Amino acid sequence: MYDIAIIGKGPAGISAAINANARNKKTIIFGGDSRKVLLSPSIPNYPGLPEITGMDFMSRLNEHLYKTDSVFVNKTVIAVYAMGDYFSIQAENDFYEAKKVILTTGVDFKKSIENEDTFLGNGISYCATCDAPLYKGKVVAVVGYNDESIEETKFLSQVCSKVYFVPMTKGNFDFAENVEIIKDVPVKFEGALKAEKLILKKSEVIADGFFVLKDSLPLSSLVPGLEVEGPHVKVNKNMETNIKGLYAAGDVTGKPYQIAKAVGEGQIAALNVSDEIS
Amino acid sequence: MYDIAIIGKGPAGISAAINANARNKKTIIFGGDSRKVLLSPSIPNYPGLPEITGMDFMSRLNEHLYKTDSVFVNKTVIAVYAMGDYFSIQAENDFYEAKKVILTTGVDFKKSIENEDTFLGNGISYCATCDAPLYKGKVVAVVGYNDESIEETKFLSQVCSKVYFVPMTKGNFDFAENVEIIKDVPVKFEGALKAEKLILKKSEVIADGFFVLKDSLPLSSLVPGLEVEGPHVKVNKNMETNIKGLYAAGDVTGKPYQIAKAVGEGQIAALNVSDEIS
Repeated sequence: MYDIAIIGKGPAGISAAINANARNKKTIIFGGDSRKVLLSPSIPNYPGLPEITGMDFMSRLNEHLYKTDSVFVNKTVIAVYAMGDYFSIQAENDFYEAKKVILTTGVDFKKSIENEDTFLGNGISYCATCDAPLYKGKVVAVVGYNDESIEETKFLSQVCSKVYFVPMTKGNFDFAENVEIIKDVPVKFEGALKAEKLILKKSEVIADGFFVLKDSLPLSSLVPGLEVEGPHVKVNKNMETNIKGLYAAGDVTGKPYQIAKAVGEGQIAALNVSDEIS
Repeated sequence: MYDIAIIGKGPAGISAAINANARNKKTIIFGGDSRKVLLSPSIPNYPGLPEITGMDFMSRLNEHLYKTDSVFVNKTVIAVYAMGDYFSIQAENDFYEAKKVILTTGVDFKKSIENEDTFLGNGISYCATCDAPLYKGKVVAVVGYNDESIEETKFLSQVCSKVYFVPMTKGNFDFAENVEIIKDVPVKFEGALKAEKLILKKSEVIADGFFVLKDSLPLSSLVPGLEVEGPHVKVNKNMETNIKGLYAAGDVTGKPYQIAKAVGEGQIAALNVSDEIS
């Protein structure tokens, strides 16, 4: 069992990991490098590192992190379950346990597709590697918001009879013959007891199952019972959420969406969490 | 008139200045380099700059700050007065005006001497250069908590007939003949309408005026009317205090007393203040 699981490897998450390690806590951090940081052409206002590029800043953060004993898992966390006095974290197909959790997922303004939440778990999945076995030899559709969704689609095409792929990013795709690319904009899911049909602007797709693959999942499905305010988690000044032992830091707690703020909150969360683990 | 006056040049203050400048605000920052940072042998947990010495970190902060258009004033701020829609800041003998103020003074756990607050302004002063003229040819006593108090004592010895100097730091002192060094611990001030006597553990000093010279003044005398909780300023999550237009950031707002937290709060304060100045 880990002392602290950190969900998200941006500035807030890395700051939390560095500070938790400074307190000798056994720490695991989930996710890949923050795309938002990587894509910044220049960061003018992180004190001590004037006019650094996002790429350089991310590698400095990683360099600092790699000096610690943190364990890294570059997988998407599907769900965090409060189990009473510990947490169970589902990262794609694997489960991890931690005494405390710090959410540092960043903020995502992409709207869900209509009825995405209604049918989640009933014909709609956020995790291809988890749920592919359910659709062996069947027809599925993938709405792909990130680069990883391309690999996941390839994997699904080996298991399923047919895969519709709706790319939400630009790119050239090289798929097997049973993958059909649909360049259209998803509008809503329809179905009776489960999702049966994806309505797009100019077309529709009927499938046995649907995968919506994106970097950050809606907070309500990521952490059942979490108190939110719009796209943000509600925290107090100790960075505690409404769920005991679950903290949050960085953009996910609200504006300003800035690195120094994220790093500061990551530190506050990690030190308060560490105080709770004796 | 400045847009923003920042009281204290530690990590929180410098972060506030950098961020206020990024928003094109006319900024002035008061104070010398943070002694707490300078004396840190190694800072392990400021993300991006692993295992940096306090000295190196302070010079990186200054380097970053010097790239901005901030004005620096290495003077002790004696008082901040809320004037309605602007602030008047007394830094030793000079007065400055600013639309908004961010307090980043750090936290000071040195206890006041008994009755120090009672007689403040009545025989007790925090500022030698301000109040020396009141004691021309008279007898004064200095309780000196910082290095600057040595220079101030020299200055007072040129104006006053006799100066008692009670050093609270270690060192060798080289004063004029009318300065008497008293190595003892101050306990309380006594007097009728004004301070007349300083009682120490093993002795007492009678004088016409008393100077208590330290880096950070009690918050209650620094900002009249400021709402505090022990040694901390009360702030909301936007870093606003109870006084409109007055913000605070860093150690002065409470624990953890850490650099990343201070830098994050300095940023939040500066960005919120900037939003208020259109």
